Amino acid sequence: MTSPLPGQSAGASFGGRLAAAMRTHGRLCVGLDPHPQLLTDWGLTQDAAGLEAFCDRVLQACIGRVGVLKPQVAFFERFGVAGMQVLSTVQHQARAAGLLVIADAKRGDIGSTMAGYAEAWLNPEGDFGADALTVSPYLGFGSLQPAIEAAARHQAGLFVLALTSNPEGQQVQLAQDARGVTVAGQIAAEAAAASTALAQADTALGSIGLVVGATTAGLAAQHGIDLAAGRMPLLAPGYGAQGAGAEELRAGFGASYAEQVLVNSSRGILGQGPDPDSLTRAIEQAKADLG
Amino acid sequence: MTSPLPGQSAGASFGGRLAAAMRTHGRLCVGLDPHPQLLTDWGLTQDAAGLEAFCDRVLQACIGRVGVLKPQVAFFERFGVAGMQVLSTVQHQARAAGLLVIADAKRGDIGSTMAGYAEAWLNPEGDFGADALTVSPYLGFGSLQPAIEAAARHQAGLFVLALTSNPEGQQVQLAQDARGVTVAGQIAAEAAAASTALAQADTALGSIGLVVGATTAGLAAQHGIDLAAGRMPLLAPGYGAQGAGAEELRAGFGASYAEQVLVNSSRGILGQGPDPDSLTRAIEQAKADLG
Repeated sequence: MTSPLPGQSAGASFGGRLAAAMRTHGRLCVGLDPHPQLLTDWGLTQDAAGLEAFCDRVLQACIGRVGVLKPQVAFFERFGVAGMQVLSTVQHQARAAGLLVIADAKRGDIGSTMAGYAEAWLNPEGDFGADALTVSPYLGFGSLQPAIEAAARHQAGLFVLALTSNPEGQQVQLAQDARGVTVAGQIAAEAAAASTALAQADTALGSIGLVVGATTAGLAAQHGIDLAAGRMPLLAPGYGAQGAGAEELRAGFGASYAEQVLVNSSRGILGQGPDPDSLTRAIEQAKADLG
Repeated sequence: MTSPLPGQSAGASFGGRLAAAMRTHGRLCVGLDPHPQLLTDWGLTQDAAGLEAFCDRVLQACIGRVGVLKPQVAFFERFGVAGMQVLSTVQHQARAAGLLVIADAKRGDIGSTMAGYAEAWLNPEGDFGADALTVSPYLGFGSLQPAIEAAARHQAGLFVLALTSNPEGQQVQLAQDARGVTVAGQIAAEAAAASTALAQADTALGSIGLVVGATTAGLAAQHGIDLAAGRMPLLAPGYGAQGAGAEELRAGFGASYAEQVLVNSSRGILGQGPDPDSLTRAIEQAKADLG
Protein backbone atom coordinates (compact mmCIF):
# COMPACT_ATOMS: atom_id res chain seq x y z
CA MET A 1 0.00 0.00 0.00
CA THR A 2 2.99 2.33 -0.25
CA SER A 3 2.81 3.06 -3.99
CA PRO A 4 0.46 5.77 -5.28
CA LEU A 5 -3.09 4.51 -5.60
CA PRO A 6 -5.20 4.87 -8.76
CA GLY A 7 -6.54 8.40 -9.13
CA GLN A 8 -4.23 9.75 -6.45
CA SER A 9 -0.99 11.59 -6.90
CA ALA A 10 1.95 10.45 -4.82
CA GLY A 11 2.46 12.58 -1.76
CA ALA A 12 -0.91 14.34 -1.95
CA SER A 13 -2.34 15.29 1.42
CA PHE A 14 -5.60 13.71 2.58
CA GLY A 15 -7.37 17.02 1.97
CA GLY A 16 -6.01 17.12 -1.55
CA ARG A 17 -7.08 13.55 -2.25
CA LEU A 18 -10.52 14.20 -0.77
CA ALA A 19 -11.06 17.35 -2.81
CA ALA A 20 -10.12 15.43 -5.97
CA ALA A 21 -12.44 12.55 -5.08
CA MET A 22 -15.32 14.96 -4.46
CA ARG A 23 -14.70 16.69 -7.80
CA THR A 24 -14.90 13.32 -9.57
CA HIS A 25 -17.64 11.56 -7.64
CA GLY A 26 -19.48 14.17 -5.59
CA ARG A 27 -19.95 14.53 -1.88
CA LEU A 28 -21.51 11.15 -1.05
CA CYS A 29 -19.65 8.94 1.43
CA VAL A 30 -21.08 5.44 1.73
CA GLY A 31 -21.22 4.17 5.29
CA LEU A 32 -20.18 0.52 5.49
CA ASP A 33 -22.33 -0.46 8.47
CA PRO A 34 -22.80 -4.23 8.61
CA HIS A 35 -25.56 -3.98 11.19
CA PRO A 36 -26.78 -7.38 12.45
CA GLN A 37 -30.26 -6.74 11.04
CA LEU A 38 -28.85 -5.93 7.60
CA LEU A 39 -26.88 -9.19 7.54
CA THR A 40 -30.14 -11.01 8.23
CA ASP A 41 -32.08 -8.96 5.67
CA TRP A 42 -29.44 -9.73 3.06
CA GLY A 43 -29.68 -13.47 3.80
CA LEU A 44 -26.19 -13.60 5.28
CA THR A 45 -24.85 -15.44 8.31
CA GLN A 46 -23.99 -13.65 11.57
CA ASP A 47 -20.31 -14.39 11.35
CA ALA A 48 -17.14 -13.27 9.61
CA ALA A 49 -18.16 -15.02 6.38
CA GLY A 50 -21.45 -13.11 6.30
CA LEU A 51 -19.59 -9.92 7.11
CA GLU A 52 -17.15 -10.50 4.26
CA ALA A 53 -19.91 -11.18 1.73
CA PHE A 54 -21.74 -8.03 2.85
CA CYS A 55 -18.64 -5.87 2.50
CA ASP A 56 -17.83 -7.29 -0.91
CA ARG A 57 -21.28 -6.43 -2.26
CA VAL A 58 -21.15 -2.89 -0.90
CA LEU A 59 -17.65 -2.37 -2.24
CA GLN A 60 -18.60 -3.58 -5.73
CA ALA A 61 -21.52 -1.12 -5.77
CA CYS A 62 -19.22 1.74 -4.74
CA ILE A 63 -16.24 1.23 -7.05
CA GLY A 64 -16.25 3.81 -9.81
CA ARG A 65 -19.33 5.56 -8.42
CA VAL A 66 -18.35 6.84 -4.98
CA GLY A 67 -15.21 8.57 -3.75
CA VAL A 68 -15.26 7.67 -0.07
CA LEU A 69 -16.15 4.59 2.00
CA LYS A 70 -16.62 4.81 5.78
CA PRO A 71 -16.48 1.48 7.63
CA GLN A 72 -18.17 1.56 11.03
CA VAL A 73 -15.54 -0.27 13.08
CA ALA A 74 -17.85 -1.48 15.88
CA PHE A 75 -19.65 -3.82 13.49
CA PHE A 76 -16.34 -5.52 12.73
CA GLU A 77 -15.03 -5.65 16.32
CA ARG A 78 -18.26 -7.43 17.22
CA PHE A 79 -16.93 -10.47 15.33
CA GLY A 80 -13.62 -10.46 17.16
CA VAL A 81 -10.30 -11.19 15.50
CA ALA A 82 -11.94 -12.63 12.36
CA GLY A 83 -14.06 -9.50 12.04
CA MET A 84 -10.98 -7.30 12.24
CA GLN A 85 -9.38 -9.40 9.49
CA VAL A 86 -12.41 -8.72 7.27
CA LEU A 87 -12.11 -5.00 8.02
CA SER A 88 -8.43 -5.03 7.10
CA THR A 89 -9.17 -6.82 3.83
CA VAL A 90 -12.03 -4.54 2.76
CA GLN A 91 -10.06 -1.39 3.62
CA HIS A 92 -7.12 -2.54 1.51
CA GLN A 93 -9.39 -3.60 -1.36
CA ALA A 94 -11.22 -0.29 -1.30
CA ARG A 95 -8.01 1.76 -1.34
CA ALA A 96 -6.52 -0.39 -4.10
CA ALA A 97 -9.68 0.31 -6.13
CA GLY A 98 -9.18 4.06 -5.72
CA LEU A 99 -11.65 4.76 -2.93
CA LEU A 100 -10.67 6.83 0.08
CA VAL A 101 -11.35 5.05 3.38
CA ILE A 102 -12.41 6.88 6.55
CA ALA A 103 -12.21 4.45 9.47
CA ASP A 104 -15.07 5.42 11.76
CA ALA A 105 -13.55 4.22 15.00
CA LYS A 106 -13.99 7.32 17.21
CA ARG A 107 -10.73 6.63 19.01
CA GLY A 108 -9.50 8.98 21.70
CA ASP A 109 -6.85 8.80 24.41
CA ILE A 110 -3.74 10.66 25.56
CA GLY A 111 -0.02 10.63 24.91
CA SER A 112 1.56 7.41 23.73
CA THR A 113 -1.81 5.65 23.80
CA MET A 114 -3.30 8.17 21.36
CA ALA A 115 -0.16 7.75 19.27
CA GLY A 116 -0.76 3.98 19.28
CA TYR A 117 -4.30 4.38 17.94
CA ALA A 118 -3.14 6.85 15.32
CA GLU A 119 -0.42 4.51 14.09
CA ALA A 120 -2.91 1.64 14.02
CA TRP A 121 -5.38 3.52 11.81
CA LEU A 122 -3.28 5.97 9.80
CA ASN A 123 -0.10 4.09 8.92
CA PRO A 124 -0.85 2.77 5.42
CA GLU A 125 1.49 -0.18 5.97
CA GLY A 126 -0.59 -1.45 8.90
CA ASP A 127 -3.50 -3.88 8.70
CA PHE A 128 -6.01 -1.14 9.53
CA GLY A 129 -4.32 1.69 7.60
CA ALA A 130 -6.99 4.11 6.36
CA ASP A 131 -6.91 7.51 4.67
CA ALA A 132 -8.55 9.13 7.68
CA LEU A 133 -9.85 8.32 11.16
CA THR A 134 -12.67 9.71 13.29
CA VAL A 135 -11.47 10.76 16.75
CA SER A 136 -13.21 11.75 19.98
CA PRO A 137 -12.06 14.76 22.03
CA TYR A 138 -13.56 14.06 25.49
CA LEU A 139 -9.98 14.23 26.79
CA GLY A 140 -9.61 17.72 25.28
CA PHE A 141 -8.53 18.77 21.81
CA GLY A 142 -4.92 18.87 23.02
CA SER A 143 -5.04 15.11 23.67
CA LEU A 144 -5.32 14.59 19.90
CA GLN A 145 -1.92 16.13 19.15
CA PRO A 146 -0.20 12.73 18.60
CA ALA A 147 -2.93 11.89 16.06
CA ILE A 148 -2.40 15.20 14.26
CA GLU A 149 1.31 14.41 14.08
CA ALA A 150 0.58 10.94 12.72
CA ALA A 151 -1.80 12.42 10.14
CA ALA A 152 0.95 14.77 8.98
CA ARG A 153 3.49 11.94 8.85
CA HIS A 154 1.27 9.61 6.85
CA GLN A 155 -0.48 12.20 4.59
CA ALA A 156 -3.68 11.11 6.33
CA GLY A 157 -6.66 12.93 7.80
CA LEU A 158 -8.72 13.22 10.97
CA PHE A 159 -12.38 13.98 11.57
CA VAL A 160 -12.82 15.24 15.12
CA LEU A 161 -16.25 14.77 16.74
CA ALA A 162 -17.66 18.25 17.27
CA LEU A 163 -21.43 18.68 16.98
CA THR A 164 -22.87 15.21 16.50
CA SER A 165 -26.30 14.31 15.17
CA ASN A 166 -27.67 12.73 18.39
CA PRO A 167 -29.57 15.10 20.70
CA GLU A 168 -28.03 13.72 23.92
CA GLY A 169 -24.60 14.84 22.68
CA GLN A 170 -25.51 18.46 23.37
CA GLN A 171 -25.05 17.83 27.11
CA VAL A 172 -21.31 17.81 26.45
CA GLN A 173 -20.96 19.64 23.13
CA LEU A 174 -22.95 22.76 24.05
CA ALA A 175 -21.57 23.12 27.57
CA GLN A 176 -19.66 26.38 27.88
CA ASP A 177 -16.45 27.75 29.28
CA ALA A 178 -16.24 30.87 31.45
CA ARG A 179 -16.29 33.09 28.34
CA GLY A 180 -19.48 31.43 27.06
CA VAL A 181 -17.76 29.49 24.28
CA THR A 182 -19.22 26.02 23.70
CA VAL A 183 -17.15 22.86 23.81
CA ALA A 184 -18.00 22.24 20.13
CA GLY A 185 -16.88 25.79 19.33
CA GLN A 186 -13.54 25.30 21.07
CA ILE A 187 -12.99 21.97 19.32
CA ALA A 188 -13.90 23.52 15.94
CA ALA A 189 -11.57 26.48 16.43
CA GLU A 190 -8.62 24.30 17.44
CA ALA A 191 -9.27 21.86 14.59
CA ALA A 192 -9.39 24.76 12.12
CA ALA A 193 -6.04 26.01 13.42
CA ALA A 194 -4.53 22.52 13.09
CA SER A 195 -5.99 22.16 9.61
CA THR A 196 -4.52 25.49 8.57
CA ALA A 197 -1.12 24.60 10.02
CA LEU A 198 -0.99 21.33 8.06
CA ALA A 199 -2.65 22.47 4.84
CA GLN A 200 -0.84 22.46 1.54
CA ALA A 201 -1.39 25.70 -0.38
CA ASP A 202 -2.60 23.99 -3.53
CA THR A 203 -5.42 21.95 -2.01
CA ALA A 204 -9.03 23.03 -1.72
CA LEU A 205 -9.44 21.19 1.59
CA GLY A 206 -7.40 20.78 4.75
CA SER A 207 -6.69 17.40 6.31
CA ILE A 208 -8.05 17.99 9.83
CA GLY A 209 -11.83 18.14 9.77
CA LEU A 210 -14.91 17.77 11.93
CA VAL A 211 -17.88 15.47 12.34
CA VAL A 212 -20.96 17.69 12.28
CA GLY A 213 -24.37 16.03 12.11
CA ALA A 214 -26.66 16.70 9.16
CA THR A 215 -29.44 17.56 11.62
CA THR A 216 -27.29 19.65 13.95
CA ALA A 217 -25.22 21.73 11.52
CA GLY A 218 -27.63 24.62 12.01
CA LEU A 219 -26.56 24.83 15.66
CA ALA A 220 -23.11 26.00 14.54
CA ALA A 221 -24.35 29.38 13.34
CA GLN A 222 -26.58 29.74 16.43
CA HIS A 223 -23.59 29.24 18.70
CA GLY A 224 -21.07 31.30 16.72
CA ILE A 225 -19.09 28.29 15.50
CA ASP A 226 -17.17 29.07 12.31
CA LEU A 227 -17.30 25.97 10.12
CA ALA A 228 -15.65 27.72 7.16
CA ALA A 229 -12.36 28.28 9.02
CA GLY A 230 -9.32 26.25 8.02
CA ARG A 231 -10.97 24.77 4.90
CA MET A 232 -11.88 21.82 7.12
CA PRO A 233 -13.54 18.80 5.54
CA LEU A 234 -16.88 18.34 7.33
CA LEU A 235 -18.23 14.81 7.63
CA ALA A 236 -22.01 14.86 8.04
CA PRO A 237 -23.78 11.73 9.26
CA GLY A 238 -27.54 11.76 9.71
CA TYR A 239 -28.63 12.15 6.08
CA GLY A 240 -31.53 10.19 4.64
CA ALA A 241 -32.71 7.20 6.64
CA GLN A 242 -31.38 8.74 9.85
CA GLY A 243 -32.82 12.21 9.53
CA ALA A 244 -32.00 15.19 7.36
CA GLY A 245 -32.77 15.80 3.68
CA ALA A 246 -30.53 17.61 1.23
CA GLU A 247 -32.36 20.91 1.76
CA GLU A 248 -31.78 20.75 5.51
CA LEU A 249 -28.10 20.02 4.88
CA ARG A 250 -27.73 23.02 2.56
CA ALA A 251 -29.51 25.28 5.04
CA GLY A 252 -27.62 23.97 8.05
CA PHE A 253 -24.13 24.19 6.57
CA GLY A 254 -24.74 27.39 4.61
CA ALA A 255 -21.74 28.60 2.65
CA SER A 256 -19.60 25.65 3.79
CA TYR A 257 -21.84 23.15 2.00
CA ALA A 258 -20.47 23.64 -1.50
CA GLU A 259 -16.80 22.82 -0.95
CA GLN A 260 -16.39 21.27 2.48
CA VAL A 261 -19.23 18.87 3.22
CA LEU A 262 -18.96 15.12 2.73
CA VAL A 263 -22.32 13.49 3.43
CA ASN A 264 -22.51 9.98 4.81
CA SER A 265 -25.36 7.65 3.98
CA SER A 266 -25.48 4.17 5.44
CA ARG A 267 -28.93 2.70 5.93
CA GLY A 268 -30.54 4.81 3.19
CA ILE A 269 -28.36 2.95 0.70
CA LEU A 270 -27.68 -0.38 2.42
CA GLY A 271 -31.39 -0.84 3.10
CA GLN A 272 -31.88 -1.17 -0.68
CA GLY A 273 -29.54 -4.18 -0.90
CA PRO A 274 -28.55 -6.85 -1.49
CA ASP A 275 -29.64 -6.56 -5.14
CA PRO A 276 -26.68 -4.90 -6.93
CA ASP A 277 -28.89 -2.82 -9.24
CA SER A 278 -30.93 -1.52 -6.32
CA LEU A 279 -27.75 -0.60 -4.43
CA THR A 280 -26.24 1.28 -7.35
CA ARG A 281 -29.57 3.02 -8.03
CA ALA A 282 -29.71 4.17 -4.39
CA ILE A 283 -26.16 5.48 -4.69
CA GLU A 284 -26.91 7.40 -7.88
CA GLN A 285 -30.08 8.86 -6.38
CA ALA A 286 -28.24 10.04 -3.26
CA LYS A 287 -25.49 11.61 -5.39
CA ALA A 288 -28.06 13.47 -7.49
CA ASP A 289 -29.96 14.56 -4.38
CA LEU A 290 -26.85 15.93 -2.65
CA GLY A 291 -25.70 17.91 -5.69
CA MET B 1 -15.55 -18.71 29.28
CA THR B 2 -19.17 -19.29 30.27
CA SER B 3 -18.51 -21.36 33.41
CA PRO B 4 -17.76 -19.59 36.70
CA LEU B 5 -14.14 -18.54 36.91
CA PRO B 6 -11.89 -19.39 39.86
CA GLY B 7 -12.59 -17.14 42.82
CA GLN B 8 -15.83 -15.88 41.30
CA SER B 9 -19.34 -17.00 42.08
CA ALA B 10 -21.59 -17.75 39.13
CA GLY B 11 -23.93 -14.91 38.34
CA ALA B 12 -22.13 -12.33 40.48
CA SER B 13 -22.30 -8.80 39.11
CA PHE B 14 -19.10 -7.06 38.04
CA GLY B 15 -19.31 -4.84 41.11
CA GLY B 16 -19.61 -7.92 43.31
CA ARG B 17 -16.64 -9.59 41.64
CA LEU B 18 -14.57 -6.41 41.86
CA ALA B 19 -15.35 -5.92 45.56
CA ALA B 20 -14.31 -9.53 46.23
CA ALA B 21 -11.10 -9.12 44.22
CA MET B 22 -10.22 -5.94 46.12
CA ARG B 23 -10.84 -7.65 49.47
CA THR B 24 -8.45 -10.42 48.48
CA HIS B 25 -5.75 -8.54 46.60
CA GLY B 26 -6.19 -4.86 47.38
CA ARG B 27 -6.87 -1.91 45.15
CA LEU B 28 -3.97 -2.20 42.68
CA CYS B 29 -4.89 -2.66 39.01
CA VAL B 30 -1.92 -3.44 36.78
CA GLY B 31 -2.01 -1.61 33.47
CA LEU B 32 -0.92 -3.87 30.62
CA ASP B 33 0.61 -1.18 28.40
CA PRO B 34 2.99 -2.73 25.89
CA HIS B 35 4.47 0.61 24.92
CA PRO B 36 6.97 0.41 22.03
CA GLN B 37 9.77 1.67 24.28
CA LEU B 38 9.03 -1.01 26.88
CA LEU B 39 9.22 -3.76 24.25
CA THR B 40 12.66 -2.44 23.33
CA ASP B 41 13.74 -2.09 26.97
CA TRP B 42 12.68 -5.67 27.62
CA GLY B 43 14.70 -6.91 24.64
CA LEU B 44 11.59 -7.89 22.67
CA THR B 45 10.75 -7.47 19.00
CA GLN B 46 8.32 -4.83 17.73
CA ASP B 47 5.78 -7.34 16.50
CA ALA B 48 3.05 -9.67 17.70
CA ALA B 49 5.60 -12.18 19.01
CA GLY B 50 7.26 -9.50 21.15
CA LEU B 51 3.83 -8.35 22.30
CA GLU B 52 2.86 -11.87 23.31
CA ALA B 53 6.07 -12.43 25.26
CA PHE B 54 5.58 -9.10 27.05
CA CYS B 55 2.01 -9.94 28.01
CA ASP B 56 2.94 -13.37 29.23
CA ARG B 57 5.61 -12.00 31.57
CA VAL B 58 3.27 -9.37 33.01
CA LEU B 59 0.49 -11.90 33.44
CA GLN B 60 2.74 -14.34 35.28
CA ALA B 61 3.78 -11.58 37.68
CA CYS B 62 0.12 -10.68 38.34
CA ILE B 63 -1.45 -14.09 38.88
CA GLY B 64 -2.16 -14.64 42.55
CA ARG B 65 -0.95 -11.16 43.49
CA VAL B 66 -3.27 -8.74 41.73
CA GLY B 67 -7.03 -8.72 41.29
CA VAL B 68 -7.38 -6.67 38.13
CA LEU B 69 -5.51 -6.34 34.82
CA LYS B 70 -6.17 -3.42 32.45
CA PRO B 71 -4.93 -3.95 28.89
CA GLN B 72 -4.45 -0.68 26.97
CA VAL B 73 -6.08 -1.65 23.67
CA ALA B 74 -4.26 0.88 21.47
CA PHE B 75 -0.97 -0.93 21.98
CA PHE B 76 -2.53 -4.10 20.57
CA GLU B 77 -4.38 -2.44 17.65
CA ARG B 78 -1.05 -0.99 16.62
CA PHE B 79 0.00 -4.50 15.56
CA GLY B 80 -3.14 -5.07 13.50
CA VAL B 81 -5.02 -8.34 13.36
CA ALA B 82 -2.16 -10.29 14.96
CA GLY B 83 -2.06 -7.78 17.82
CA MET B 84 -5.77 -8.22 18.42
CA GLN B 85 -5.25 -11.98 18.52
CA VAL B 86 -2.64 -11.50 21.26
CA LEU B 87 -5.07 -9.29 23.18
CA SER B 88 -7.80 -11.92 22.92
CA THR B 89 -5.44 -14.61 24.16
CA VAL B 90 -4.11 -12.64 27.13
CA GLN B 91 -7.61 -11.56 28.19
CA HIS B 92 -8.85 -15.15 28.18
CA GLN B 93 -5.75 -16.39 29.99
CA ALA B 94 -6.07 -13.70 32.64
CA ARG B 95 -9.75 -14.42 33.26
CA ALA B 96 -9.13 -18.16 33.38
CA ALA B 97 -6.47 -17.47 36.03
CA GLY B 98 -9.00 -15.58 38.16
CA LEU B 99 -8.05 -12.01 37.29
CA LEU B 100 -10.68 -9.47 36.35
CA VAL B 101 -9.98 -7.77 33.01
CA ILE B 102 -10.87 -4.15 32.29
CA ALA B 103 -10.43 -3.50 28.56
CA ASP B 104 -9.19 0.08 28.33
CA ALA B 105 -10.56 0.86 24.88
CA LYS B 106 -12.43 4.13 25.55
CA ARG B 107 -15.13 3.25 23.03
CA GLY B 108 -18.04 5.60 22.47
CA ASP B 109 -20.72 5.89 19.81
CA ILE B 110 -24.52 5.93 19.52
CA GLY B 111 -27.35 3.46 19.05
CA SER B 112 -26.60 0.19 17.32
CA THR B 113 -22.94 1.18 16.89
CA MET B 114 -22.51 1.62 20.66
CA ALA B 115 -24.30 -1.72 21.07
CA GLY B 116 -21.79 -3.28 18.67
CA TYR B 117 -18.83 -2.08 20.71
CA ALA B 118 -20.47 -3.23 23.94
CA GLU B 119 -21.09 -6.71 22.55
CA ALA B 120 -17.53 -6.86 21.26
CA TRP B 121 -16.01 -6.08 24.66
CA LEU B 122 -18.53 -7.32 27.22
CA ASN B 123 -19.88 -10.58 25.79
CA PRO B 124 -17.73 -13.21 27.52
CA GLU B 125 -18.15 -15.57 24.58
CA GLY B 126 -16.50 -13.14 22.17
CA ASP B 127 -12.80 -12.92 21.39
CA PHE B 128 -12.45 -9.62 23.26
CA GLY B 129 -14.86 -10.40 26.11
CA ALA B 130 -13.71 -8.59 29.25
CA ASP B 131 -15.19 -8.04 32.71
CA ALA B 132 -15.48 -4.32 32.10
CA LEU B 133 -14.83 -1.67 29.44
CA THR B 134 -13.81 1.98 29.58
CA VAL B 135 -16.20 4.20 27.58
CA SER B 136 -16.11 7.82 26.42
CA PRO B 137 -19.15 10.11 26.75
CA TYR B 138 -18.40 12.90 24.22
CA LEU B 139 -21.71 11.93 22.58
CA GLY B 140 -23.52 12.45 25.89
CA PHE B 141 -24.12 10.06 28.77
CA GLY B 142 -27.37 8.98 27.11
CA SER B 143 -25.41 7.59 24.15
CA LEU B 144 -23.98 4.94 26.49
CA GLN B 145 -27.37 3.38 27.23
CA PRO B 146 -26.79 0.37 24.91
CA ALA B 147 -23.53 -0.31 26.75
CA ILE B 148 -25.30 -0.14 30.12
CA GLU B 149 -27.84 -2.66 28.83
CA ALA B 150 -25.04 -4.93 27.60
CA ALA B 151 -23.29 -4.65 30.97
CA ALA B 152 -26.50 -5.73 32.70
CA ARG B 153 -27.00 -8.61 30.27
CA HIS B 154 -23.45 -9.95 30.63
CA GLN B 155 -22.90 -9.21 34.34
CA ALA B 156 -20.16 -6.86 33.19
CA GLY B 157 -19.09 -3.35 34.12
CA LEU B 158 -18.33 0.05 32.61
CA PHE B 159 -15.94 2.82 33.58
CA VAL B 160 -17.11 6.09 32.06
CA LEU B 161 -14.49 8.80 31.45
CA ALA B 162 -15.37 11.65 33.78
CA LEU B 163 -12.49 13.71 35.18
CA THR B 164 -9.34 12.42 33.53
CA SER B 165 -5.78 12.93 34.66
CA ASN B 166 -4.58 15.02 31.70
CA PRO B 167 -4.87 18.80 32.13
CA GLU B 168 -6.16 19.45 28.59
CA GLY B 169 -9.25 17.33 29.39
CA GLN B 170 -10.62 20.13 31.56
CA GLN B 171 -11.55 22.09 28.43
CA VAL B 172 -14.40 19.61 27.97
CA GLN B 173 -14.85 18.10 31.42
CA LEU B 174 -15.17 21.35 33.38
CA ALA B 175 -17.33 23.17 30.83
CA GLN B 176 -20.70 24.00 32.35
CA ASP B 177 -24.38 23.89 31.50
CA ALA B 178 -26.76 26.82 32.06
CA ARG B 179 -27.14 25.86 35.75
CA GLY B 180 -23.38 25.88 36.29
CA VAL B 181 -23.04 22.10 36.50
CA THR B 182 -19.85 20.76 34.91
CA VAL B 183 -19.84 18.11 32.20
CA ALA B 184 -17.94 15.80 34.56
CA GLY B 185 -20.56 16.44 37.23
CA GLN B 186 -23.42 15.56 34.90
CA ILE B 187 -21.63 12.40 33.73
CA ALA B 188 -20.92 11.40 37.34
CA ALA B 189 -24.51 11.94 38.45
CA GLU B 190 -25.95 9.95 35.56
CA ALA B 191 -23.42 7.16 36.04
CA ALA B 192 -24.29 7.00 39.75
CA ALA B 193 -27.98 6.69 38.89
CA ALA B 194 -27.24 3.91 36.39
CA SER B 195 -25.03 2.16 38.93
CA THR B 196 -27.77 2.35 41.55
CA ALA B 197 -30.37 1.04 39.12
CA LEU B 198 -28.25 -2.00 38.25
CA ALA B 199 -26.74 -2.70 41.66
CA GLN B 200 -27.37 -5.89 43.52
CA ALA B 201 -28.21 -5.28 47.15
CA ASP B 202 -25.56 -7.61 48.51
CA THR B 203 -22.55 -6.08 46.76
CA ALA B 204 -20.31 -3.39 48.16
CA LEU B 205 -19.78 -1.88 44.70
CA GLY B 206 -21.97 -1.07 41.73
CA SER B 207 -21.10 -2.07 38.18
CA ILE B 208 -21.16 1.32 36.46
CA GLY B 209 -18.19 3.41 37.52
CA LEU B 210 -16.01 6.32 36.50
CA VAL B 211 -12.50 7.05 35.38
CA VAL B 212 -11.19 9.80 37.68
CA GLY B 213 -7.51 10.68 37.49
CA ALA B 214 -5.30 10.27 40.54
CA THR B 215 -4.11 13.85 40.09
CA THR B 216 -7.55 15.33 39.36
CA ALA B 217 -9.75 13.61 41.96
CA GLY B 218 -9.49 16.70 44.15
CA LEU B 219 -11.35 18.70 41.50
CA ALA B 220 -14.49 16.67 42.23
CA ALA B 221 -15.01 18.24 45.64
CA GLN B 222 -14.16 21.69 44.28
CA HIS B 223 -16.87 21.37 41.63
CA GLY B 224 -19.52 19.71 43.80
CA ILE B 225 -19.18 16.30 42.14
CA ASP B 226 -20.39 13.50 44.43
CA LEU B 227 -18.08 10.53 43.88
CA ALA B 228 -19.65 8.52 46.72
CA ALA B 229 -23.04 8.28 45.02
CA GLY B 230 -24.17 4.95 43.61
CA ARG B 231 -21.29 2.99 45.17
CA MET B 232 -19.48 3.49 41.87
CA PRO B 233 -16.14 1.81 41.32
CA LEU B 234 -13.63 4.56 40.56
CA LEU B 235 -10.71 3.72 38.29
CA ALA B 236 -7.80 6.06 38.95
CA PRO B 237 -4.97 6.28 36.43
CA GLY B 238 -2.07 8.62 37.03
CA TYR B 239 -0.50 6.95 40.08
CA GLY B 240 3.22 6.57 40.47
CA ALA B 241 5.29 7.05 37.32
CA GLN B 242 2.58 9.27 35.83
CA GLY B 243 1.98 11.57 38.74
CA ALA B 244 0.25 11.17 42.10
CA GLY B 245 1.45 9.41 45.23
CA ALA B 246 -0.74 7.45 47.62
CA GLU B 247 -1.17 10.46 49.92
CA GLU B 248 -2.47 12.60 47.07
CA LEU B 249 -4.90 9.82 46.13
CA ARG B 250 -6.25 9.57 49.68
CA ALA B 251 -6.63 13.33 49.91
CA GLY B 252 -8.20 13.69 46.46
CA PHE B 253 -10.75 10.91 46.80
CA GLY B 254 -11.51 11.52 50.46
CA ALA B 255 -14.13 9.19 51.94
CA SER B 256 -14.53 7.32 48.62
CA TYR B 257 -10.95 6.06 48.73
CA ALA B 258 -11.47 3.22 51.17
CA GLU B 259 -14.10 1.20 49.34
CA GLN B 260 -14.43 2.49 45.80
CA VAL B 261 -11.02 3.33 44.37
CA LEU B 262 -9.11 0.98 42.10
CA VAL B 263 -5.69 2.43 41.33
CA ASN B 264 -3.98 1.71 38.04
CA SER B 265 -0.22 1.50 37.73
CA SER B 266 1.40 0.80 34.40
CA ARG B 267 4.85 2.25 33.88
CA GLY B 268 5.68 2.34 37.60
CA ILE B 269 5.54 -1.46 37.57
CA LEU B 270 6.37 -2.34 33.96
CA GLY B 271 9.44 -0.12 34.06
CA GLN B 272 10.93 -2.56 36.60
CA GLY B 273 10.72 -5.49 34.15
CA PRO B 274 11.49 -7.78 32.50
CA ASP B 275 13.09 -9.48 35.51
CA PRO B 276 10.27 -11.45 37.17
CA ASP B 277 11.48 -10.78 40.71
CA SER B 278 11.73 -7.05 40.06
CA LEU B 279 8.21 -7.04 38.59
CA THR B 280 6.69 -8.86 41.54
CA ARG B 281 8.59 -6.66 43.99
CA ALA B 282 7.21 -3.54 42.26
CA ILE B 283 3.71 -5.01 42.49
CA GLU B 284 4.04 -5.78 46.20
CA GLN B 285 5.46 -2.32 46.90
CA ALA B 286 2.58 -0.62 45.09
CA LYS B 287 0.03 -2.75 46.97
CA ALA B 288 1.60 -1.84 50.30
CA ASP B 289 1.79 1.83 49.34
CA LEU B 290 -1.87 2.00 48.31
CA GLY B 291 -3.17 0.31 51.45
